[in-house]
Amino acid sequence: MRLLLIGFGNVARTLAEMLSVEKNNFPRLNRLQAIPVGIATAAHGNVYNKNGLDWAELLQYFGAHSGFQGHSSFTKNTTLQLIEYADYDVLVELSALSVSEQGEPAVRHVRTALQRGKQVVTANKGPAAFAFRALRELAGAKGVRFLFESAVMDGAPVFNLARTALRGATITGIRGILNSTVNYILQEIEQGESLDTALEKAKQRGITETDPSYDLHGWDAAVKLCVLGNALLDKELHPGNIRREILDETVAAQARQALLRGMRLKQIAEIIPDGALITGKVFFSAVRPVDRFYSVSGSGSILQIGTDVMAPIIIQQSDPNLYDTAYGVLNDLLELRENRISRHLFYSEKLK
Amino acid sequence: MRLLLIGFGNVARTLAEMLSVEKNNFPRLNRLQAIPVGIATAAHGNVYNKNGLDWAELLQYFGAHSGFQGHSSFTKNTTLQLIEYADYDVLVELSALSVSEQGEPAVRHVRTALQRGKQVVTANKGPAAFAFRALRELAGAKGVRFLFESAVMDGAPVFNLARTALRGATITGIRGILNSTVNYILQEIEQGESLDTALEKAKQRGITETDPSYDLHGWDAAVKLCVLGNALLDKELHPGNIRREILDETVAAQARQALLRGMRLKQIAEIIPDGALITGKVFFSAVRPVDRFYSVSGSGSILQIGTDVMAPIIIQQSDPNLYDTAYGVLNDLLELRENRISRHLFYSEKLK
Repeated sequence: MRLLLIGFGNVARTLAEMLSVEKNNFPRLNRLQAIPVGIATAAHGNVYNKNGLDWAELLQYFGAHSGFQGHSSFTKNTTLQLIEYADYDVLVELSALSVSEQGEPAVRHVRTALQRGKQVVTANKGPAAFAFRALRELAGAKGVRFLFESAVMDGAPVFNLARTALRGATITGIRGILNSTVNYILQEIEQGESLDTALEKAKQRGITETDPSYDLHGWDAAVKLCVLGNALLDKELHPGNIRREILDETVAAQARQALLRGMRLKQIAEIIPDGALITGKVFFSAVRPVDRFYSVSGSGSILQIGTDVMAPIIIQQSDPNLYDTAYGVLNDLLELRENRISRHLFYSEKLK
Repeated sequence: MRLLLIGFGNVARTLAEMLSVEKNNFPRLNRLQAIPVGIATAAHGNVYNKNGLDWAELLQYFGAHSGFQGHSSFTKNTTLQLIEYADYDVLVELSALSVSEQGEPAVRHVRTALQRGKQVVTANKGPAAFAFRALRELAGAKGVRFLFESAVMDGAPVFNLARTALRGATITGIRGILNSTVNYILQEIEQGESLDTALEKAKQRGITETDPSYDLHGWDAAVKLCVLGNALLDKELHPGNIRREILDETVAAQARQALLRGMRLKQIAEIIPDGALITGKVFFSAVRPVDRFYSVSGSGSILQIGTDVMAPIIIQQSDPNLYDTAYGVLNDLLELRENRISRHLFYSEKLK
């Protein structure tokens, strides 16, 4: 399986480590056999070699030179040129989300690869938040997959779960704590920090976006809510139409007040279908200890899925790190690999 | 898809209702097209017609006559004779578990069907608790599936999740609240009931087994722990080797004490691999409000899955009913159907 990676940030480098220097720690990932043929970055140069590159060598070079300039496989081809003309099996889109650019350039990256009949795996929320239907239809028309398990709750199963465990169910509503940065900040405020100091501590832990308003203004949760609504409820949601409450000094005061009453203030993201209408909102609510959202601590997250047939199913993730995000991408790659193999086996069997 | 059902108790009758009189309530189950050709019961007679029976008619007849005696498709063939000689695609094993009989007769039912190359779906914990390896190997040798999603936490995804979302991960440990009846009894004790009254209330709700020691002595949780250990951790566990704490007056007093300290007593089932050794136990522990097990109320359940690569993943189920159990079986049937179709489609495409 030959990969073209877009982005070589923390997630991509963790993924590269898991497949090379750390591979003996993860025996069940060994069968993946995923070889990079190219990596395109926004500002650190691009590399491409159709005969395959080496994860460990790329990591070392990138670390030593802060980029790919001067690498023996350095190419002046742009990201889009590589996506359009390079020889690869799967586009792995790991660029950073831009809400103001409506998910671009990631949406274009994904569309271009799908149009060529390439498989696509992405941890970027943009494509599924801003262009889900068009991309799903394009993938369907080309007979390839568009997978994005890591876009929400990292490698914890959300889209996998819906595809396999809810085959016969209709999802009727979704409620979750989806932004782990805000959850961490609220917990720091409970422990006596000011909003500013709590935000500073989150930055030091490396869990905030470059633009803090992305977390504080609820954009991250709103974008994730759109991915869930589009992919799980088959709706056409747009991040701009999700109502968002902003985490400011007033909310920080509410968090301190809630604590005095034995409760915890949580940022909750919710979709409640209401006939043809659909209401998506990101808001703050105080929850009691008997509420299962109460125990979501630190940078954890939780998602409650309502269906027409079962009592709500809840998925919860405890303090994830970069391995969790990279794993979600790798699990999607394993799905591509195994579906291909099972089909191939069956075909061969029939020919006997 | 032609089904042979073993058992026509609450779960089987709910399943029959979902596929007949209630089918318009569950649009995504419609595509299943599952037709019963036979139903075998322990004490209410058997029916069989290779041309297919009718769910609604069977429900009505069974309700009106408290059994199948006198039905136009009544047969004197025994359960085992039907499994061995009837014409069906999938054995749906819904008989009651017997711990004292080491999972029999369900283990034999499943083995007999697999030996004939029939698909098997079961909600009975016995086969996967007492004979998992042999049955898995037999299914593999015959090229069929042995599915049991409803054996633990009903239709909430456990085995589905492991198969699809944890393709590249090794499961390293499991911890859960698996017996919802004990959880309900502990909650009633917290609310001031005696152990006897709490058990009586559970009986009235229909959530206890015929033999109350099955719940109170921890057998239900121990058997589920074995299914999880066998199927998810690839170990060979036996229910008799799981250490079990009994829910008695002493434990009831502990539950009342815990409440006074702001905690809740929970029955916890846990597997911690320890090198070649494996320790499985069912015990009582007081948990604080910040513990995610604290909020598991009523007949809910929770399962925390540790892996080599990710932070623990938690699946939680809120108060399930018979639809949840029946749904797990139907989802397994949908998996059989869709894998067959996707293989068939691919084959046809290749021939073009």
